[in-house]
Amino acid sequence: MDRYQSFARSGLGRFVVGKLGLPDPHPLRRHSPGKPPLDGPVLVGGGGRLADAVRAAVKSAGLDLAPEPGGTGRGAADGERYGALVFDASGIDSVERLRELYEFFQPVIRSLGPCGRVVVFGTPPEQAGSQIAQRALEGFTRSVGKELKRGGTAQLVQVAPGAEAAIESTVRFLLSGRSAYVSGQVVRIGPADVEPPADWDRPLAGKVALVTGASRGIGAAIAEVLGRDGAAVVCLDVPAQGDELSAVANRVGGTALQLDITAPDAPARIVEHLVRRHGGVDVVVHNAGITRDRTLGRMDADRWDAVVAVNLASPERVNEALLAADAVRPNGRIVGVSSIAGVAGNVGQTNYATTKAGVIGMVDSLSRRVEGRATVNAVAPGFIETRMTAAVPLVIREAGRRMNSLSQGGLPVDVAEAIAWFAHPASAGVTGNVVRVCGQSLLGA
Amino acid sequence: MDRYQSFARSGLGRFVVGKLGLPDPHPLRRHSPGKPPLDGPVLVGGGGRLADAVRAAVKSAGLDLAPEPGGTGRGAADGERYGALVFDASGIDSVERLRELYEFFQPVIRSLGPCGRVVVFGTPPEQAGSQIAQRALEGFTRSVGKELKRGGTAQLVQVAPGAEAAIESTVRFLLSGRSAYVSGQVVRIGPADVEPPADWDRPLAGKVALVTGASRGIGAAIAEVLGRDGAAVVCLDVPAQGDELSAVANRVGGTALQLDITAPDAPARIVEHLVRRHGGVDVVVHNAGITRDRTLGRMDADRWDAVVAVNLASPERVNEALLAADAVRPNGRIVGVSSIAGVAGNVGQTNYATTKAGVIGMVDSLSRRVEGRATVNAVAPGFIETRMTAAVPLVIREAGRRMNSLSQGGLPVDVAEAIAWFAHPASAGVTGNVVRVCGQSLLGA
Repeated sequence: MDRYQSFARSGLGRFVVGKLGLPDPHPLRRHSPGKPPLDGPVLVGGGGRLADAVRAAVKSAGLDLAPEPGGTGRGAADGERYGALVFDASGIDSVERLRELYEFFQPVIRSLGPCGRVVVFGTPPEQAGSQIAQRALEGFTRSVGKELKRGGTAQLVQVAPGAEAAIESTVRFLLSGRSAYVSGQVVRIGPADVEPPADWDRPLAGKVALVTGASRGIGAAIAEVLGRDGAAVVCLDVPAQGDELSAVANRVGGTALQLDITAPDAPARIVEHLVRRHGGVDVVVHNAGITRDRTLGRMDADRWDAVVAVNLASPERVNEALLAADAVRPNGRIVGVSSIAGVAGNVGQTNYATTKAGVIGMVDSLSRRVEGRATVNAVAPGFIETRMTAAVPLVIREAGRRMNSLSQGGLPVDVAEAIAWFAHPASAGVTGNVVRVCGQSLLGA
Repeated sequence: MDRYQSFARSGLGRFVVGKLGLPDPHPLRRHSPGKPPLDGPVLVGGGGRLADAVRAAVKSAGLDLAPEPGGTGRGAADGERYGALVFDASGIDSVERLRELYEFFQPVIRSLGPCGRVVVFGTPPEQAGSQIAQRALEGFTRSVGKELKRGGTAQLVQVAPGAEAAIESTVRFLLSGRSAYVSGQVVRIGPADVEPPADWDRPLAGKVALVTGASRGIGAAIAEVLGRDGAAVVCLDVPAQGDELSAVANRVGGTALQLDITAPDAPARIVEHLVRRHGGVDVVVHNAGITRDRTLGRMDADRWDAVVAVNLASPERVNEALLAADAVRPNGRIVGVSSIAGVAGNVGQTNYATTKAGVIGMVDSLSRRVEGRATVNAVAPGFIETRMTAAVPLVIREAGRRMNSLSQGGLPVDVAEAIAWFAHPASAGVTGNVVRVCGQSLLGA
């Protein structure tokens, strides 16, 4: 908990926050081994082609299915709090049938417990019987995300026809503390051959992951979470970060690779290291990124060039080298790190926002190019508590922290968990997505 | 000017605003007959396939082309203020070449005058040599929009290969006061046969336009602007608004059509009226909309049903009836009205946001279905000063007004001008767009 949050949870704080209508950040329930994924059972409604697969995934994840509400149709059993409300809207094929959404959620929404989940499953609009109705679902879930209190989140998952069997890793991610800081998102799942992992607790066992910028902050968290999930992690960073990098590599049982990704020979050296030492790579996470902020009129060319080189040109060159060498193994994963600044633009960040919007273009283009061989996705972090954001002036920092539906900043682990979901071998149908990890930040395009 | 804005422009106000870092809304330069479209010449840079067409459109619009900056490469001539900075980035085919964007804008951005325009022309990323670089342009323009002061705006226009001759109506819209409250947008133009109008001041002469919800607010402004542009406007609203509707119809030299668009026979009556009285319709504007706000748990079914019926089911039914009767004449225009709530969701508006997101789905699906016969686009207004927003409590109203790059609310005419641009006979290549009229609101998805 940050300082404001500690204050807001104190006796005096609750009083002040309530009287003044200040943000009331609820402590988020995050993943912890041995703890159930959610507090409370999952109510599943709707009668489309996905409801059965959703119920099966819920049970497989160790969650309880709640019985349908009783004859009164008014909410949960006495005092019961749902852990999640899930609705299969894939069968909604007209504007009029959107009412089914209302009929399911309206009576039960107030029975959703703290850090509860709302997930609506639909069909990609352009493949649906009513493109209008399916596109409308997005306005619904985004509004619900903004209405939920106490750490609740809401998402829309668009599952292509034929992809019904490819949803389990996504159900497990969204119906757990792993998605604590993800809200208001639209996720697409396409058809894919999905093998469930031998062990859902170590889904990356036997896999090799490369993480750039791994010595600290979000990068270190990514290395840790992928290591926890069983991957052999190659932690990459510049030589100047060598000590911190070694510490992270040791902690996650991985190896350290010191190099500057902007060096001309960097892509070749990375390929060589991965192929020679590991026989290839399964998961590539382009996390390394820098900022060099100035408004455009005051930005010298070095600031422009440095940010473009690290954040965009290098990932592109590394991808091309890996693909040319056929170093990404089958069912591979390429993950970019965009930013809400890349989605929305930001003052003083014409250079940074250009590169982070470019990462979205990389997802769009590369996901099509390598379809069937690898998935390509990106996270777009919002306000994440790191040493970088701790250096932001107080007032701006507080504004950034509170301007989202969860009224708090996220943690590096929240970004890492989203990447682990992309990296999951059962996420073969999850490709071409840019998922914001921003607590449903108000900021957007 | 609203009251805050008047205060902020006063002597004391300037001092207070400056000291406290408060929003400093600059009076927006809007379209006025006889006034030049912009203050100052237009500097055009970049060497792609669009620069010549842009220069021709600039001259045709009665604007001056600025000479290229002198040998020093550092900004405008002494004291000169550009009216607009336009860059043809369609030739940027690599991440490295993004530097051309920086090289053009950096030296001159501070020479952009009040209410100046930044427009970057590019290629739809999926049709580009470098999808990454073209997608990156969006992060750049959105950041520039946020950095500009004093009423400046920034947009990205993605012109498909083959659509070079279809850009003039868009150049004229963006490089004028007609787009005063449009910023941070991405517009797409596809190939189309475009005939310039006989008279650019009355481009809709001989055309018939239907405007629903025309009796007041944004709808009345739409009727007025389409009437000003020469259209015979059929003003539609519910019988209870009859007097106000007649007044609008008289003012714009159009006719009034009283009916409830949710009535079962409404689509047939509309078709009958348009075909019998006018021989068909050229421009259909689905402006009628209502709100019935409540958080979901407290929303009765009537609120859900009423909002869906007016905002989404009726436009869909009217479109289907018009198309079935072949009542939309060639080079037709269908325009929806979405909302930033439809893009981003909003507290208390699960019903409204569902419908306004559905309007985006309507644009997506219908624009493909009627391609070549009609264009389909939508505006998504942000905070617009109307009787509706005047009823919002002060603090929320002020927040809504200021949370955008222009630090002020828009006027109904701003929405109407965007619709007139869609309606323009030379906008045949502008289809499938959802353009926000929101001053680049911070709120987004």
